[in-house]
Amino acid sequence: MWKPERNSKKALYEQIADHLEQRISYGEFPPGSLLPSERKLAEQFEVNRSTVISAFAELRSLGIIESRTGSGTRVSTSKWGATPKHTPNWSRFAEGGNFLPNLPFLRRIREALGQDPSLIDFASGELSGDLAPTDEIAALMSRNAYTSYLGYDNPQGFTPLREALVQYLSNYRRIQATESSILITSGSQQSLFLITQCLLSPGDAVAIEDPSYCYSLPMFQSAGLRLFRLPVDNHGIQPEDIRVLYKKHRIKMVFLNPNYQNPTGTVLSVERRKRLLDIICELGLPVVEDDPYSLTSYEGVPPLPLKSMDTTGSILYIGSFSKIAASGLRIGWMVAPRSIVERLTDARQQMDFGLSIIPQQIAAQFLQSSYFGPHLESLRIQLQFKRDLLIESLEKELSGLIEYAAPEGGLHFWCKLIPDIPDAKLLEESIKQGIIFVPGSVYGSDSGYVRFTFARSKPEDIELGIAKFAKAIRRLME
Amino acid sequence: MWKPERNSKKALYEQIADHLEQRISYGEFPPGSLLPSERKLAEQFEVNRSTVISAFAELRSLGIIESRTGSGTRVSTSKWGATPKHTPNWSRFAEGGNFLPNLPFLRRIREALGQDPSLIDFASGELSGDLAPTDEIAALMSRNAYTSYLGYDNPQGFTPLREALVQYLSNYRRIQATESSILITSGSQQSLFLITQCLLSPGDAVAIEDPSYCYSLPMFQSAGLRLFRLPVDNHGIQPEDIRVLYKKHRIKMVFLNPNYQNPTGTVLSVERRKRLLDIICELGLPVVEDDPYSLTSYEGVPPLPLKSMDTTGSILYIGSFSKIAASGLRIGWMVAPRSIVERLTDARQQMDFGLSIIPQQIAAQFLQSSYFGPHLESLRIQLQFKRDLLIESLEKELSGLIEYAAPEGGLHFWCKLIPDIPDAKLLEESIKQGIIFVPGSVYGSDSGYVRFTFARSKPEDIELGIAKFAKAIRRLME
Ligand SMILES: Cc1ncc(COP(=O)(O)O)c(C=O)c1O
Ligand SMILES: Cc1ncc(COP(=O)(O)O)c(C=O)c1O
Repeated sequence: MWKPERNSKKALYEQIADHLEQRISYGEFPPGSLLPSERKLAEQFEVNRSTVISAFAELRSLGIIESRTGSGTRVSTSKWGATPKHTPNWSRFAEGGNFLPNLPFLRRIREALGQDPSLIDFASGELSGDLAPTDEIAALMSRNAYTSYLGYDNPQGFTPLREALVQYLSNYRRIQATESSILITSGSQQSLFLITQCLLSPGDAVAIEDPSYCYSLPMFQSAGLRLFRLPVDNHGIQPEDIRVLYKKHRIKMVFLNPNYQNPTGTVLSVERRKRLLDIICELGLPVVEDDPYSLTSYEGVPPLPLKSMDTTGSILYIGSFSKIAASGLRIGWMVAPRSIVERLTDARQQMDFGLSIIPQQIAAQFLQSSYFGPHLESLRIQLQFKRDLLIESLEKELSGLIEYAAPEGGLHFWCKLIPDIPDAKLLEESIKQGIIFVPGSVYGSDSGYVRFTFARSKPEDIELGIAKFAKAIRRLME
Repeated sequence: MWKPERNSKKALYEQIADHLEQRISYGEFPPGSLLPSERKLAEQFEVNRSTVISAFAELRSLGIIESRTGSGTRVSTSKWGATPKHTPNWSRFAEGGNFLPNLPFLRRIREALGQDPSLIDFASGELSGDLAPTDEIAALMSRNAYTSYLGYDNPQGFTPLREALVQYLSNYRRIQATESSILITSGSQQSLFLITQCLLSPGDAVAIEDPSYCYSLPMFQSAGLRLFRLPVDNHGIQPEDIRVLYKKHRIKMVFLNPNYQNPTGTVLSVERRKRLLDIICELGLPVVEDDPYSLTSYEGVPPLPLKSMDTTGSILYIGSFSKIAASGLRIGWMVAPRSIVERLTDARQQMDFGLSIIPQQIAAQFLQSSYFGPHLESLRIQLQFKRDLLIESLEKELSGLIEYAAPEGGLHFWCKLIPDIPDAKLLEESIKQGIIFVPGSVYGSDSGYVRFTFARSKPEDIELGIAKFAKAIRRLME
């Protein structure tokens, strides 16, 4: 939100006048429309009302606005609306198109975080700064040059990164890939976008987990897909449900997040994996395996991806740097049959012409460096530490009021509230108390569930945040 | 294209067997399908036929393929096709979706460049490495730290870059913007993608220049838009044509590239600009001004954008780093009314979650550094030098066979061939001679036009390339 500069040479009222003139010229306030009141603007700009009055006087003297007593201040129609001059109806364009807006809860969360940076953030699904390998990346950047080539790169992705991923996938995830079967994308997000936009057609039926990260993405509806649910219990989905949906709705693709699922944290059991693979092979049904979390397992050997057991080439595998290193690099990857990689490379050429090569170089170096293994080990330990802190705080503050199954990996904690409180009320009261989370309904679940991302908070904020959350709950239970 | 490694420890035939097994397991060759012949594969892999025969023997012994005399080699149905096992029909998915594939000529050009890196490249629309500010960017990168924050950034774009662009737009392009009216995108390409996907609806009519870069983008058709043409002469489009199209087809938006237009190099005359602005204000019709080239003008004061004259906020302005600095940074920007910026930010959140912050930091630093002005000056001189070299070579080799109007800015040279030679023939013969260009029909023009990008070649290759091109023409005229 724009505010005038306190230590500028330009007077506050002049800054405000210029700012308003610009917004008018951009069509935000069309000719004849009513401007917000002096009082409202003074609040917004954090200035005295008299400053806004001076700014209005200035604009009036320029013929840009007109005031009539009792009917407020309007954008002049003689200056801006001289008969043949029309500003496009931008709001109609903003409402047009195929692309659905983000869910109201997610927009509310973004807005609240923008307005109050002091909120304790259990909503943003990412690592805290100290968990990201910032020193390691800084060290790599100080040792390497990045500017030998700065032209358009292969839209399939920087070749050395694809080569580094072949090694990484083989060493860490037991997936045998070739560089030609890898597509580099802007996080897993863009892999999902490309699949839903370019491989499926409007009207196609697909199956997704319930609850699931996919529900938080209007992307699926924007592509015109019909969504069918695969309920998740403590061991993941029931593979037989896929067969039922296939028979009933001819689903064309299945989207799964089998390791430390977002939001529930569950891992699909080994026994169900086997049945799942049998069923999808029987049906010739492709599965998208979205796997950003498997390497975050807190203890023991991380679960392997489904893709490592995929002998028929039925799985499109998606990985990401976001949850194991740094989400701001925007590096993700897809492993797919070459025909699919070629198709998506061709399409993305239309969308963004590929990613910047500098972060791709950094990612390739980091994966191949001696930093990567130790970074992962320490990440896993610290995530476990934060999860334990969260559980401790929840048990202290909300014992008896919540139910959960503690996750063994991932960044999130899923829990059910026993008292019956509507999502929207709880979210608003929590914001008031200074803490924010994602209501479960964003992921398609019933009301009364909450996702806490504990990975993003400082350890000392976890206890404090849960205390604030508990206060919100107690308020609403009164 | 995959090839076995000559100096690997693994025998060539083993590498080939592994490679084929993998492609089979990925569903590229479904159970029962015919493999390419031994001879064909030997050619592709650049090995002796006997090596492929050994690889096939290996695969046969594993039960992966079956050969029958006289009917070639097939993927085994007993191993891969065991009744309940099916690989998804990937080719159907690759053909699905809304997104149209790239134009055949563009795919052919990409393929030819991939196969023969020694081709003299007059096709890729970008700067040569030595014209990009590589040393300057390297110097900035050695002085600055980039890792203080590596989390998810504002999907509207890195705030300091938007602030730097406010300055840049004001100083260099006389556009008054605020950071809240700027959206950072992956080159201008993504700005165009967001506009066509999110602000317009299938069936909407839009006007584009003829010829135009837009025709090279199936993006417009993929969004279901109906395209109407605004013919370009030596002074750009005729503004009155817009009114005609509006009356006839209710066009919803106009796409223009008024400064050193791609591909023709023309500049919309000042007098037509004024009429254009009057007409679009009269109709309340929004214009997308795609302006990657205006600062490349070889001499004098660069033409200002239409947006600098836009008093009604009717223009969505798009700029890019690609043609004035480095296309591989993938940095572009859009200036738009806040409601539009908000809408597109929300939508792009679904697509890629924003750009990597490191290239955005680099771009912000470069724009604000003392390198930027001098870099632009030297770029303009060197582009003029290359254009002159091209004209000299064309006059020497093809005098009387071509017609053109020399461009005063930009990276491209548009010319008409007087002899009547079909585009496809000329392209193939040129590739044979060792030079590649873009046929004019890619931009929607009639056959017989050629776009040469001279900015990308080394000076010494310009003369050589045109000599090769002339040879191709003479061959086809025989
Ligand atoms: C399951 C899952 N998939 C994909 C994503 C997208 O992340 P990114 O694009 O940063 O890789 C997320 C982020 O929360 C996620 O939880
Ligand atoms: C007129 C025009 N617009 C947009 C683009 C896309 O370039 P980028 O996405 O690299 O900015 C090009 C590239 O050739 C172009 O010529």
